[in-house]
Amino acid sequence: MESKKYAIGVDFGTESGRAVLVEVATGREVATAVYAYQNGVIDEALPVEGQRVPLEPDWALQDPQDYIRTFQRTIPQVLAETGVPAEDVIGIGIDFTACTMLPVKADGTPLCMLPEFRSQPHAWVKLWKHHAAQPEADKINATAREMGQPWLQRYGDKISSEWFFSKTLQILDEAPHIYQAADRLIEAADWVVWQLTGVETRNSCTAGYKAIWSKREGFPPNEYFTALDPRLERVVDEKMMRHIIPIGDRAGGLTPQAAEWTGLVAGTAVAIANVDAHVSVPAVTVTEPGRMVMVMGTSICHMVLGEEEHLVPGICGYVEDGIIPGYFGYEAGQSCVGDHFAWFVENCVPAAYEREAQAQGVDLHQLLEQKATRLLPGESGLLALDWWNGNRSVLVDVDLTGLLIGATLATRPEEIYRALIEATAFGTRVIVEAFQDHGVPVDELVACGGLPDKNHLLMQIYADVSGREIKVSASDQAPALGSAMFGAVAAGSEVGGYDTIYAASQAMARLKEHTFKPNPQNQPVYDRLYREYLRLHDTFGRGENNVMKTLKNIRAETRQRANREA
Amino acid sequence: MESKKYAIGVDFGTESGRAVLVEVATGREVATAVYAYQNGVIDEALPVEGQRVPLEPDWALQDPQDYIRTFQRTIPQVLAETGVPAEDVIGIGIDFTACTMLPVKADGTPLCMLPEFRSQPHAWVKLWKHHAAQPEADKINATAREMGQPWLQRYGDKISSEWFFSKTLQILDEAPHIYQAADRLIEAADWVVWQLTGVETRNSCTAGYKAIWSKREGFPPNEYFTALDPRLERVVDEKMMRHIIPIGDRAGGLTPQAAEWTGLVAGTAVAIANVDAHVSVPAVTVTEPGRMVMVMGTSICHMVLGEEEHLVPGICGYVEDGIIPGYFGYEAGQSCVGDHFAWFVENCVPAAYEREAQAQGVDLHQLLEQKATRLLPGESGLLALDWWNGNRSVLVDVDLTGLLIGATLATRPEEIYRALIEATAFGTRVIVEAFQDHGVPVDELVACGGLPDKNHLLMQIYADVSGREIKVSASDQAPALGSAMFGAVAAGSEVGGYDTIYAASQAMARLKEHTFKPNPQNQPVYDRLYREYLRLHDTFGRGENNVMKTLKNIRAETRQRANREA
Repeated sequence: MESKKYAIGVDFGTESGRAVLVEVATGREVATAVYAYQNGVIDEALPVEGQRVPLEPDWALQDPQDYIRTFQRTIPQVLAETGVPAEDVIGIGIDFTACTMLPVKADGTPLCMLPEFRSQPHAWVKLWKHHAAQPEADKINATAREMGQPWLQRYGDKISSEWFFSKTLQILDEAPHIYQAADRLIEAADWVVWQLTGVETRNSCTAGYKAIWSKREGFPPNEYFTALDPRLERVVDEKMMRHIIPIGDRAGGLTPQAAEWTGLVAGTAVAIANVDAHVSVPAVTVTEPGRMVMVMGTSICHMVLGEEEHLVPGICGYVEDGIIPGYFGYEAGQSCVGDHFAWFVENCVPAAYEREAQAQGVDLHQLLEQKATRLLPGESGLLALDWWNGNRSVLVDVDLTGLLIGATLATRPEEIYRALIEATAFGTRVIVEAFQDHGVPVDELVACGGLPDKNHLLMQIYADVSGREIKVSASDQAPALGSAMFGAVAAGSEVGGYDTIYAASQAMARLKEHTFKPNPQNQPVYDRLYREYLRLHDTFGRGENNVMKTLKNIRAETRQRANREA
Repeated sequence: MESKKYAIGVDFGTESGRAVLVEVATGREVATAVYAYQNGVIDEALPVEGQRVPLEPDWALQDPQDYIRTFQRTIPQVLAETGVPAEDVIGIGIDFTACTMLPVKADGTPLCMLPEFRSQPHAWVKLWKHHAAQPEADKINATAREMGQPWLQRYGDKISSEWFFSKTLQILDEAPHIYQAADRLIEAADWVVWQLTGVETRNSCTAGYKAIWSKREGFPPNEYFTALDPRLERVVDEKMMRHIIPIGDRAGGLTPQAAEWTGLVAGTAVAIANVDAHVSVPAVTVTEPGRMVMVMGTSICHMVLGEEEHLVPGICGYVEDGIIPGYFGYEAGQSCVGDHFAWFVENCVPAAYEREAQAQGVDLHQLLEQKATRLLPGESGLLALDWWNGNRSVLVDVDLTGLLIGATLATRPEEIYRALIEATAFGTRVIVEAFQDHGVPVDELVACGGLPDKNHLLMQIYADVSGREIKVSASDQAPALGSAMFGAVAAGSEVGGYDTIYAASQAMARLKEHTFKPNPQNQPVYDRLYREYLRLHDTFGRGENNVMKTLKNIRAETRQRANREA
């Protein structure tokens, strides 16, 4: 009898990295190990000895050595725990936050690891949530609009400050010597694959969603980059790569050094890098159009596959081969979901509720969910716009802010809590309808991430509001599972893996039996509330009343004046 | 040497009655006694023995015996405490909440004191905040509009469900036998004066502000009442009185029985009844146009005198001789001020703040004020519409609700708290500008009530937002002081009192030295925020977007359906 075969998925998150050992035949998750990054999110000062290098507001960096340490700490641990022999691990895949990028030398050495650059903030990894490149993003968008660049509409007419060229241009603007010294500018996702395989590759997912690449048109033309900054003219040719490899391919085999880090066998297949959200799609059984995947946590990432190319206004973008080879992968997002409830619980729930929760032995989220579950749709008389952290889709406007309407002296905390949940559900419905209205069907929702298990009320509200059944991932670590699946595909069927991600998904992905079905009694009320939501959405989000921006401007001016006077 | 002379003011509040003994020459408040009504606000069940008579939602009643007990308990107490001889008390005045009204027999006996009516809710005193007569108010307004009744515009085109004929019509609708059995329908203010003097009188303040009377036109014509309900045709002639006595007159002298209750001398002068808000005006030195008085507590009552008659849209009403004889007394109001902050503190302030307040030995209001004081105008990026309890002036719409806009994940409780304060200040500015724009000048604000001493931040914000200096009452019991002043006027100068309320106010009323002056640095920011407030005010308050009402309707339907199914 053949021995069982395994694949390992490594999921690089914001605060930690996680390895999961998965049985290839069944998708069973056999062991998990997590490494909390030693230097975490670096947002106050660089972790360098002997001097204090403070960071400006909105900066968020990481230490690339934390990624190597993740391999070193987690993979040996899952092997040791299970006794699985290294030779039975046939493949490894990784997924990463994105756009998380860094400047490196030609041999892959990060600039921040070189003594001469160690105290330079721009030499470090810029984490996805590094938000200091807004002026550069503004310039990228303005220049693209002026030049009529056709790719802009693929991204909902707006490139984010989080993305690759915004961060690149910030390096060039603020630290031209770092830009100069960088032989390569690379996604951390591709960089760790390079560290594992010794080969520099670039994956179609980050290239497409974060670096304005498309399979049919490639990168923006050099004239565009010249218009941004003459020094940027040949950035793609000099510091990146035009050869982009589709998701699902094999990047290479483990180097002897990487084999030593991990305890695996040198030559073990390594998949092309992937992104945490996108890699979850096949892990929740989705390899075909019509089924929207929602990664639900602090924010929501919505992904759906399409056979055809469609322009959908206000989405984050779409990339051919970006999620599953052979399909256009459409992505949209909501920037504030779990974060909403965390903010509410921290700032707006009275001490009496804390005491009640303690007496019941539950946390405040659970207590609020309990109380909010007893309310009927429409019973609170409240309605909110879920823009506490701006609006990603379909308005693509970080300067929008939150709104609550309908409060009375009888309004209770659980009513506001429920109104916030409903607002995020309406936000998802706006996205679903945008896809649907522009030729990308959405028949069913499939959820993964932290929220679906934590908050059943929320899931039911999403089903009621969207009018669609919601299925839920059986795995609570879908990204790592998806990465392991891509590892099994990189290995191929000859060694016990799979030849396609479809086959891997069929065998290895599972959903829970329990699903959330729309309650027909609740839908009519939610339809009425949704109409009111949409009207407020358009009034405050599409320029009819720009009070949110006026308030932000007044706030910014007030703070500037206060700083000047201080 | 003549002995010092005194007057007594008795202020009948919602939960208690209060007597203050005042030195007539100086206005010095020598002693105070408070009686907490035995039966308080009756809003769940009647206080009758041997049976349970539950009340419907929105009902609020009182027991007239509590008013008599107030005289019996408080006046003897202030005399005993001070040793002031009864013969040195030259006059007594009272003020009351309004419209607080009751059905009585021809001899003044309240129906609820008769055994056959004791278990009938409609036989009891309807307190000002009895809100169950909305259908009747709707009918009063609709009928007046259909018939083109000219008096409607004196009241901002809307008669409130709290007022006299709404309550009267509710009795007729729901308990015609009580209406039938009532020989008189009377304001509690006038009823207690009747009990003191043995003479039924009707004062111009409640008649004018609450019962649609005017000095020039009297009551609405009988045809109007017939149109409301044929049984109501002669309500004024049969159950009320057409002879209305101006504020400042003498009602009569104490009866021997009232002298026995109070320990005063029979025949002591008693002033015509007054209303708690309006009686405060001369008590804070205001007897001339241009100076708006704000009684600031759970709500705000705004009053200003005018020499001429002007229609000001959306105010509560104006009454000639209604506040100070010889002037038109204009009244407007905000229905939710202190109530706002109480709601916020109870529902929206996290446990961490409670702990911080405890550690500092302050209450949550003080802690929030402390934190909010450190913020600059505009710094929070928040803006609110202060309609948690509807809008009294200038929109006159109880179905409007609260709105908060501009929230982000960085929003803190003290920022919301400050935004609520600012919203109420913008609400006051709307009222001030409505008066100003329609020919009733407002140059200065004079504040009394519970808030001015409690919340200095609030007072400063009102000064900054309104652009007007705010002076503050030296007395923290302005209504009782005002009543005592009217008592001294009822006595007259021959016995050591005054002949006019102007003279009494000159001698007896005082303001604090400390005033709140607009800070010129803050005004420009508040002007910008006010423009945004006004725009939201008009969008949601004047029919452009009726989402607040739609939400209220959905809520009402949801609750009805839930009740049917329960």
